[in-house]
Amino acid sequence: MKRILIDMDEVLADVYPKFLDLFEREFGRRPEREEYWGKKIYDLPNADWIRERLHDKGFFADLPLMPGSREVVQELSERYEIFINSAAMEFRYSLQEKYDWLQEHFPFISWRNFVFCGDKRALRGDYMIDDHVKNLRHFQGTPLLFTASHNAFETDFIRVNNWEEVRAYFRGAV
Amino acid sequence: MKRILIDMDEVLADVYPKFLDLFEREFGRRPEREEYWGKKIYDLPNADWIRERLHDKGFFADLPLMPGSREVVQELSERYEIFINSAAMEFRYSLQEKYDWLQEHFPFISWRNFVFCGDKRALRGDYMIDDHVKNLRHFQGTPLLFTASHNAFETDFIRVNNWEEVRAYFRGAV
Repeated sequence: MKRILIDMDEVLADVYPKFLDLFEREFGRRPEREEYWGKKIYDLPNADWIRERLHDKGFFADLPLMPGSREVVQELSERYEIFINSAAMEFRYSLQEKYDWLQEHFPFISWRNFVFCGDKRALRGDYMIDDHVKNLRHFQGTPLLFTASHNAFETDFIRVNNWEEVRAYFRGAV
Repeated sequence: MKRILIDMDEVLADVYPKFLDLFEREFGRRPEREEYWGKKIYDLPNADWIRERLHDKGFFADLPLMPGSREVVQELSERYEIFINSAAMEFRYSLQEKYDWLQEHFPFISWRNFVFCGDKRALRGDYMIDDHVKNLRHFQGTPLLFTASHNAFETDFIRVNNWEEVRAYFRGAV
């Protein structure tokens, strides 16, 4: 069975709504998509404070699912070995929150198939779905770039814009 | 730089003293080495209750260092890329405790090089130091079996009995 490594933040979990809520609460306005599309959302003016909130207890506990992620991952898990990985090791509280989040939203994936790491260079698989070029660049299997604002203009990888496109890709894959 | 993957429990951290303390407190006597050598310590009669303690908050927080582990890992980190990994994903509270334990005892290893997982088949490196045959068996690099009671009679792998032997092995390795 071939192995797919699937990233969490901005792939399975949608981080932007929470970030935008925090921004709006702090600065009284919600940034427009054009302000951050093509850039890191954390590079918005004055957003350093919001970036720091990722270290707070609870930040990762209640992130919404990326649309379609659960259904498509469940389908894929019938034909592939799924490993869910996250490089959020920088955020100490995130470990337990991510563990609980996965058990809540992806109960059909065993904890045996969770990987929490810092750097993803030590991971091995046949496919990697990730929004960060730095993770895909070192991967020895087939990398798939999941669209996020910070990678919008990257052209070096096969791109999947959403979970429908992931489904379509693997329907065509061997 | 070649990459060494190093396991935590029973390799960097010494789990047995804590296990034996709990056994002694519960049953009024400390098991002799002959009772568990060559077997899983958790298979001692009535030890199920103690095995369950691994799920308790705090179990992994104060484990002693395996003798020599810090010094030898520090030496190795000058010539190799060190990734510390642990398959304790089964124990929900262990994640944060292991993170803090590593930052306390191995401050020269970045959190970028920590990997917490369930199954180690998705890991990649040049060497793996581990006490579990099931982890070494699937590894594509060079596996080194770190002696623990449960693997005492295994003969399929290069064996290192302690951290002095790890040091000696890598002094001779390319």
